[in-house]
Amino acid sequence: MTLMEPEIKILKWIKPNSEDKEKALATFEEIRKRIEKALAGSFGSYEVMLEGSMAKDTWLKNDPEMDVFIVFSEELNKERLKEIVEKLSETLKDLSPMISFAEHPYLTIKKDMFSIDIVPAIKMGVNLRPRTAVDRTPLHTEYVLKNTDERLRDEIRVAKAFMKGIGVYGAEIKVGGFSGYLVELLVIKYGGFRELLEATKDWKQPVSISLEGDGKKLKDLRERYPKSSMLLPDPADPTRNVSAALTRKKLGEFVLASWLYLEHPSLYYFSNKLEEMLVNEIGNLPLEFYAGNAVVVDIKLQSPIHPEVLWGELKKSSASIKNLLERHGFGVIRCDEWSDERSCAAIACLMEEKLLGPMNLVLGPPFHLRENAAEFIEKYQKAPMSGPWLEEDGRLRSLTIRKKLSPAQIIEDSLDEVLGVDLKKGSVRVYRLSQTDRTSNYELHRWLKLFLMGKPKWLLPLYFQSALGEPREEDLFS
Amino acid sequence: MTLMEPEIKILKWIKPNSEDKEKALATFEEIRKRIEKALAGSFGSYEVMLEGSMAKDTWLKNDPEMDVFIVFSEELNKERLKEIVEKLSETLKDLSPMISFAEHPYLTIKKDMFSIDIVPAIKMGVNLRPRTAVDRTPLHTEYVLKNTDERLRDEIRVAKAFMKGIGVYGAEIKVGGFSGYLVELLVIKYGGFRELLEATKDWKQPVSISLEGDGKKLKDLRERYPKSSMLLPDPADPTRNVSAALTRKKLGEFVLASWLYLEHPSLYYFSNKLEEMLVNEIGNLPLEFYAGNAVVVDIKLQSPIHPEVLWGELKKSSASIKNLLERHGFGVIRCDEWSDERSCAAIACLMEEKLLGPMNLVLGPPFHLRENAAEFIEKYQKAPMSGPWLEEDGRLRSLTIRKKLSPAQIIEDSLDEVLGVDLKKGSVRVYRLSQTDRTSNYELHRWLKLFLMGKPKWLLPLYFQSALGEPREEDLFS
Repeated sequence: MTLMEPEIKILKWIKPNSEDKEKALATFEEIRKRIEKALAGSFGSYEVMLEGSMAKDTWLKNDPEMDVFIVFSEELNKERLKEIVEKLSETLKDLSPMISFAEHPYLTIKKDMFSIDIVPAIKMGVNLRPRTAVDRTPLHTEYVLKNTDERLRDEIRVAKAFMKGIGVYGAEIKVGGFSGYLVELLVIKYGGFRELLEATKDWKQPVSISLEGDGKKLKDLRERYPKSSMLLPDPADPTRNVSAALTRKKLGEFVLASWLYLEHPSLYYFSNKLEEMLVNEIGNLPLEFYAGNAVVVDIKLQSPIHPEVLWGELKKSSASIKNLLERHGFGVIRCDEWSDERSCAAIACLMEEKLLGPMNLVLGPPFHLRENAAEFIEKYQKAPMSGPWLEEDGRLRSLTIRKKLSPAQIIEDSLDEVLGVDLKKGSVRVYRLSQTDRTSNYELHRWLKLFLMGKPKWLLPLYFQSALGEPREEDLFS
Repeated sequence: MTLMEPEIKILKWIKPNSEDKEKALATFEEIRKRIEKALAGSFGSYEVMLEGSMAKDTWLKNDPEMDVFIVFSEELNKERLKEIVEKLSETLKDLSPMISFAEHPYLTIKKDMFSIDIVPAIKMGVNLRPRTAVDRTPLHTEYVLKNTDERLRDEIRVAKAFMKGIGVYGAEIKVGGFSGYLVELLVIKYGGFRELLEATKDWKQPVSISLEGDGKKLKDLRERYPKSSMLLPDPADPTRNVSAALTRKKLGEFVLASWLYLEHPSLYYFSNKLEEMLVNEIGNLPLEFYAGNAVVVDIKLQSPIHPEVLWGELKKSSASIKNLLERHGFGVIRCDEWSDERSCAAIACLMEEKLLGPMNLVLGPPFHLRENAAEFIEKYQKAPMSGPWLEEDGRLRSLTIRKKLSPAQIIEDSLDEVLGVDLKKGSVRVYRLSQTDRTSNYELHRWLKLFLMGKPKWLLPLYFQSALGEPREEDLFS
């Protein structure tokens, strides 16, 4: 199948033309020269290569990310890699360099319109086990180029734009979605964008996809990744699951959006502007109705935290807070996390109740567990409250008086237990959201509005389709 | 083992002396003569017999119930039995006769200090299958007399008084506890009152007790009564479970009270006055704290209902109301039922919340159930509330606005669905209990106090032991 409307329209907005490509190559050449100059003589033999979506010709011109790899032909230890990255950071300090240490040290700079990752890596052959994830990248580039033509690369671009639009693109912890490479493999596997969307109708969990029809590899992979929602062996290293970072939530969002799109295709699905549009029309939504039921943990970070660490802690802390509130008796509707990835982060939870009532039903042991039952009776019969008593199910119960009734108070008293170690270092305020509250942080304020509205990105196209009908392209993409 | 203190003290209050027994026999003789006169000539050959606890010499003088059986030597159909009962009711109308039709028609009258059941039955031998439950009664009398001496019958009396005190005596639906015959068999089995209490420490569920060590009978019984909390084959008919009416709750209450008693034996366990004492000292309990959280369904019965039917409907309706409130989002602490068995009945429920908040989290289907998911999205995306959204567990959720927030309103709108057919015929009011509310019905008002206090009968001895220490016998029994 070739692309149809509205995908053809989309392609105009996202596909780089020859001028865009020349610009990218010129930028790469300039960076390459500066790297070679900086490393001259001191670091053995290497090659500076353009990698990632630019090398694969699957990049989107409205989101131009460049991966520059420095591929060394000999083994280098982590100390040495770090030294290289620090040296480059020094040399490129006019381009606001930022060093990251994930599995592997690398450098991010800004130049022209590009966000550029500079990554030192070790050369490897197809049959060698890669030492780190980045060492595989050149093999990925090779595989994609070998298995696509320009038509299929256009389909990949459309698929990426779709996933960005509905909020499931990116394997970083913040998103937990589809990596660029995963999208490429999926489009290669099914032969096109619409074909991929159609295929989701038959996906069972865990979704098991084999590029080379090798069931054995899939079986091994399922054992290595028992919790993955999707299994897809990397052609460059079949013991690795390309979709290891994909959460069940993002898988589900993609599947639902695919079905909705196939039923009513629309340009909305490819736009990054829907949240902005939603915030602008917020007057129509009864936000004051929700506000009193939401609590915010508002954190000024002590110092910048690497995004993978930051979002990891935020998600874990958010789950702990949800659990804490539920243990205290709240009906938690949902919790979500936000950060500007610089100095601020927040966790918000929306609950069915504004406050808990003071009466608390305590579930005790079954009567036949003698020691537990005796302890429970001993503990509660002295209280001036009713109980303990026995119900038809054979379990003891009693009433106690709740002392903490406000969610903010409950969280505040347990911050040390629920917050991640780096978040804890910051300055933390916990407050109930009210309509008159105005955080001075505009971005946070905007996010809180979106949080209360609870219309996720994958649903917004449908929402706008029914509210506004089809849009003008210019409103969505320019 | 022989009885110890405080059981020996108790025996003085409950064991009939020869004068009591003579009075009972004199009353029986008078009734027998009146029955024979009434039935003279028209109803074939029969014998009027004293049955039940008086015949077995296991009755309590402070609760003198008499069972008079008219045992016919030939088959009589139900119509004929009814005719007999009606005839007797006519003859004995000076003794406020009340006809009951349970499995079997019978007559209840009051004479002197006795409550007397007059029951027509068919004579049967040990090896004949009994036609109805009452036909077995003479065999029960025989078995108990054969297997007890006076000492053991005293132990039985103490056990009955204990069970009455803690509220687990009586197989009627209202109680769901231990029948007199079941208590007799248990004391025979274990050899005494304290021995029975000790034995509960080894009881596993379901409690399986064999009087004649016949495992086969127990196995058959377990198949016939898969839901029973206790299995005890009737020596007079091993296919029948003597403890069929015993609920798990009453079994558990007896077990817990047994342990508490063995640890700290006390006269309190044998008294029927503890609830009265509790109501009198109610000033100490923070009742106003609870009242607003309780809802009462207050029923004026259209006409008297047989107690077994009445309590059956009350318990079923109460469970339905609890379920209804929970489905709407309330945390129900407990529900209970009351009736004067004449003209009034009530169901009360205590909840954690006074009112529900307007926000309601709706749990939807998992995303991979395509049709259900599509339906859920279709239904909720148009609502002006937030959602639908997808959570990490792969299930859709959404928010709705609750329209019914008050428990009284919720119940009132579903009365037809939750109330039993006879209760529905009455005049029903549903209201939230407040401290200033005063129902004009004194008995109901008293019960509501007890309901709010939530101190069950089996727990009251412990409660008073720690509050007041040991009591004077006269305060508990005279």
